[in-house]
Amino acid sequence: MSTLTSLVNHQIRLAARPVGLPTREGWSFTEESITEPQDGGVVVKTLSLSLDPAMRGWMNEGKSYIPPVGIGEVMRAGGVGRIIASKNTNFAVGDYVSGGLGVQEYLQVPVDQIKRSGLVKIDLSIGSVNQWLNVLGMPGMTGYFGLMDVGQPKEGETVVVSGAAGAVGQTVGQMAKIKGCRVVGIAGGKAKCDWVVNELGFDACIDYKASPTTAGVSSGSAVKEGLKEHCPKGVDVYFDNVGGEILDTVLTRINMKARIIICGAISQYNNTTAVQGPKNYLSLLVNRARMEGIVVFDYASRYHLAVAEMAGYLKDGRMKSKEDVVVGLKTFPETLINLFNGSNFGKLVLQVAED
Amino acid sequence: MSTLTSLVNHQIRLAARPVGLPTREGWSFTEESITEPQDGGVVVKTLSLSLDPAMRGWMNEGKSYIPPVGIGEVMRAGGVGRIIASKNTNFAVGDYVSGGLGVQEYLQVPVDQIKRSGLVKIDLSIGSVNQWLNVLGMPGMTGYFGLMDVGQPKEGETVVVSGAAGAVGQTVGQMAKIKGCRVVGIAGGKAKCDWVVNELGFDACIDYKASPTTAGVSSGSAVKEGLKEHCPKGVDVYFDNVGGEILDTVLTRINMKARIIICGAISQYNNTTAVQGPKNYLSLLVNRARMEGIVVFDYASRYHLAVAEMAGYLKDGRMKSKEDVVVGLKTFPETLINLFNGSNFGKLVLQVAED
Repeated sequence: MSTLTSLVNHQIRLAARPVGLPTREGWSFTEESITEPQDGGVVVKTLSLSLDPAMRGWMNEGKSYIPPVGIGEVMRAGGVGRIIASKNTNFAVGDYVSGGLGVQEYLQVPVDQIKRSGLVKIDLSIGSVNQWLNVLGMPGMTGYFGLMDVGQPKEGETVVVSGAAGAVGQTVGQMAKIKGCRVVGIAGGKAKCDWVVNELGFDACIDYKASPTTAGVSSGSAVKEGLKEHCPKGVDVYFDNVGGEILDTVLTRINMKARIIICGAISQYNNTTAVQGPKNYLSLLVNRARMEGIVVFDYASRYHLAVAEMAGYLKDGRMKSKEDVVVGLKTFPETLINLFNGSNFGKLVLQVAED
Repeated sequence: MSTLTSLVNHQIRLAARPVGLPTREGWSFTEESITEPQDGGVVVKTLSLSLDPAMRGWMNEGKSYIPPVGIGEVMRAGGVGRIIASKNTNFAVGDYVSGGLGVQEYLQVPVDQIKRSGLVKIDLSIGSVNQWLNVLGMPGMTGYFGLMDVGQPKEGETVVVSGAAGAVGQTVGQMAKIKGCRVVGIAGGKAKCDWVVNELGFDACIDYKASPTTAGVSSGSAVKEGLKEHCPKGVDVYFDNVGGEILDTVLTRINMKARIIICGAISQYNNTTAVQGPKNYLSLLVNRARMEGIVVFDYASRYHLAVAEMAGYLKDGRMKSKEDVVVGLKTFPETLINLFNGSNFGKLVLQVAED
């Protein structure tokens, strides 16, 4: 404990709101010292941070499902860490926790911010640090509740998920298989597609990057043809992480009473023009289908149930997880961009410190 | 009966699929003779036909919720008529019926097409011929089930409906008032807006045509400002008959868990370019809201319940109806166009014959 005050907390703060893709110049790198916690407070050492497409939205000004990150504030990030100092009876030194750690090496939490930080103890016997950021963390919860509560898949139905090799997509596809559905993924590149089919057991995966391009614009034909081939009975549930052309193409293949879960639209997050609306949305009318948004926080009171269920699947091998781990806090600006060019393979995790 | 064979049935048939607005040249005018019905068959004399925005969709090639009208076929239309000859024990001469009469003076139905024609007896003691095409007919059923089943409005919620003075809009707004909601209409022109407020009892109505225009393009600001003013608590249910910019503007004002009923998109039906997708659809995500399509035929088994309920409201004065009646079968091509320029005021009815 006597060493606590000698620690330097390296932080990455939002310096400017990006237009289009975030750049290195949009961040500032700061240092703060750590102090002993006051009554009820704790200090958390960051082990790993979750890098998520949603981060791009938090960097924009304006109303959304949570307030934007303010200019000059430490960038918001979920993560897993270890308690290294505590004056709070709910947390002991050595406890592992997940919560809103931020893009920094340490999180100092006074008593009145414990709740806001969302710190909860986690059990590493049921999942690794990285799995707690993936299938047992926010992405897993998003996939689980989005699929099960909004999508309501029935045995024998066809479920399509975009971003299939990503954190949410992995969970959605594997859960849908466990529930007896036909599962077709959409992902970028042969390696990802092979992996979700061969390792995760999806029935098929469509490589959207396989479409011929003209002047850099994809024809989208790979998705169109792939859906025809792999969803011969149409699409009952579509879990959308990407928006744009892929959403529009899936809309042409939905069944009566189909459910489309709007979880994200990564293809649109770095637009400098307006978001592309789904021009085929009248397929909802023709097919009496629905399109519904999901925000994971609404399900917080049931996270423990989903974690328990999915930890069981991890244990018995019915569910696998893959993380793409990049090491070093300072790589954050470049690593975040990987999310948007699709170069990450699996849940993107920034390892800040070894345990 | 001996005069039946002397009748001439004037018909209007689809001659060519329109590009953009339908034109007079896209129709052919034909005559057929009427014959005595065979066993199980009936002959119906058309009294009034329902002219609906959906007709534009039926004129296009390609899969929709019902097959397109074929080139050379009598144009599909719902209507009310009277049985003038019958060899079917379910229908007596003099019975009033509604069903798919088509744009023609008489419908000759052999026994094997009775079901397909959707002929059902109607009771003129609970509603007039025109009301049976309006609030007690398909538009009324569409409004009723779209609002009640898909929209699920709760007392005190704010319901917005576009096309407010139209057939569906009248029903939706009045039903929502009866269910205890705050109701705001969107319609084109002061006369329509005054009418839905003063006669139908809507809480407010926004005149979308009041927006300033630049080079013929509406700024849409009247809808934006109107929603701000008249929906101070946001929008819980939006019943969309129009699509386009109005849908996009409403999407910026929806509440958490809002329900958007996609009933039609009249602003887009005569497009010669792609349908305009709702670029603000990610508001569904932020607000955990849903957008769902409705096709009235799905509720056929419950029409009688909705008719009984709404006939009660018509009788006790809680519900009113307005029809815009144009006389003469031959005016059909021009009259149909009125729907798309918004010049009809109330449910557009084509009176083919006096009772």
